[in-house]
Amino acid sequence: MAGQRFRMTVAYDGSEFHGWQRQTTPEGLVLRTVAGELESIISRVLRQPVMVQGASRTDAGVHARGQVASFVADSPVPVERMERAINSRLPPDLEIRDLAIAHRDFHPIRDALRKQYRYRLHHSLRRPLEKRRFVWHCWYDLDIAKMRDAAARLIGRHDFAGFAQADHGRASTVRTIMDCRIEIEPPEIHLLVIGDGFLYNMVRIIAGTVVEAGRGRIDLARIDRALTEGDRRLAGPTLPPEGLWLEWIEYPDPPSIDTDPSARARQDAQRSTEAGA
Amino acid sequence: MAGQRFRMTVAYDGSEFHGWQRQTTPEGLVLRTVAGELESIISRVLRQPVMVQGASRTDAGVHARGQVASFVADSPVPVERMERAINSRLPPDLEIRDLAIAHRDFHPIRDALRKQYRYRLHHSLRRPLEKRRFVWHCWYDLDIAKMRDAAARLIGRHDFAGFAQADHGRASTVRTIMDCRIEIEPPEIHLLVIGDGFLYNMVRIIAGTVVEAGRGRIDLARIDRALTEGDRRLAGPTLPPEGLWLEWIEYPDPPSIDTDPSARARQDAQRSTEAGA
Repeated sequence: MAGQRFRMTVAYDGSEFHGWQRQTTPEGLVLRTVAGELESIISRVLRQPVMVQGASRTDAGVHARGQVASFVADSPVPVERMERAINSRLPPDLEIRDLAIAHRDFHPIRDALRKQYRYRLHHSLRRPLEKRRFVWHCWYDLDIAKMRDAAARLIGRHDFAGFAQADHGRASTVRTIMDCRIEIEPPEIHLLVIGDGFLYNMVRIIAGTVVEAGRGRIDLARIDRALTEGDRRLAGPTLPPEGLWLEWIEYPDPPSIDTDPSARARQDAQRSTEAGA
Repeated sequence: MAGQRFRMTVAYDGSEFHGWQRQTTPEGLVLRTVAGELESIISRVLRQPVMVQGASRTDAGVHARGQVASFVADSPVPVERMERAINSRLPPDLEIRDLAIAHRDFHPIRDALRKQYRYRLHHSLRRPLEKRRFVWHCWYDLDIAKMRDAAARLIGRHDFAGFAQADHGRASTVRTIMDCRIEIEPPEIHLLVIGDGFLYNMVRIIAGTVVEAGRGRIDLARIDRALTEGDRRLAGPTLPPEGLWLEWIEYPDPPSIDTDPSARARQDAQRSTEAGA
């Protein structure tokens, strides 16, 4: 039996996960990951093995409100009941939302149009206490105007090689940032980034660059050089994972069915290995 | 050397503490408590043994934004530096705020005039995820008007014997509730309680009673009986600790210096063993 394809939004507190992607240690120990937890619970609830594919391979400690994932299974019950049954068995740091039947060809990575990430700085001398797993505590003096200018400079279609961890493993490092801006929610400062795709650690490096700009240590000319020369050392540091949130992923509605196979092959080449930002 | 008395506000995420009060297991194992952590770090920073006395013995899992505590020590440095030095060594789930030199006779329990507690319900079918350590997840249908009526009924000077855990160990169970009301902060519902003192588990039992009223399972007549008959079974259940926050404690300003020793003795009798609410 072929089964149906399901699509779901997934929210999680990434603090106690070793990231999204299934992982085993060299000794063969299975680490606790979001995809692994989902597969094991969904397989148990549906009494059949399922493979869960996510749109973004978020790193250990990174959180999501709007991760999108998909799996194929035979559906014994209506989706609403299935969603409740699965959620009632998921651990408290993980929840699925909006489980729905998707087009048979839906592919969470390939079909994604845009994603929004948010990097949250807790900007205060006081420690964040109850938010400490969800923000990065930053007490530097920051010039917000400089941060806004730096963020705006990154908008557009650029080669982001200088904003990716060395082992990004991508053929192309060209991505389009549709929006990159600062939002102030005292005592927090947020960096919002919307893009068509992200390289490994790219959002955390963009956030580190914008913070360094706010500290007066990286100017706009240096950001331009980082974009044109692709030298990782010109951009700012990779900020810690706990401040990073994957907020939403946009798809065509209804999910795209390609009529142009060559365009699809091009997209595949760019996106099939899309990793955590 | 006599030393000076210090007073401080203490904020903590109670999730990973065995409550405020120093505790050892029957086997002699020292449990991680807020007072124990504070004493050990302050003693190390000031290089002298200190004893920390808190205004409220919050239970395991209960949080505080405005616990008040006091200790006596010789001060080698200005208080601002002392506060920074101590905070830099405290674990991330604990912070002291507003460390100040207090009157030599300041007593955090005896001098307290009023305290505010907040009980946070996360009222949604969705799980709270990142707030899950700080709210109680409650998905019952609730009639807010009934909750408001029940809360208002508790305001005043009453014998709260029916709203205390059996082993409260108090001579008098009469307390005054100055305010008890519902605040709506979607998707949360908060119960605020201001009183001159609280019996063991009293706020959590009040919250459980107000929730049962909202579910239509406890009416105002039964609340009146719980107050007059003092039967614990008439009040609602003790809600879990994670939703409870100690918000502030009010003191006379400047700290009271009693001129009437008999009034003070009376206060002592009531308050000297004030425990977690």
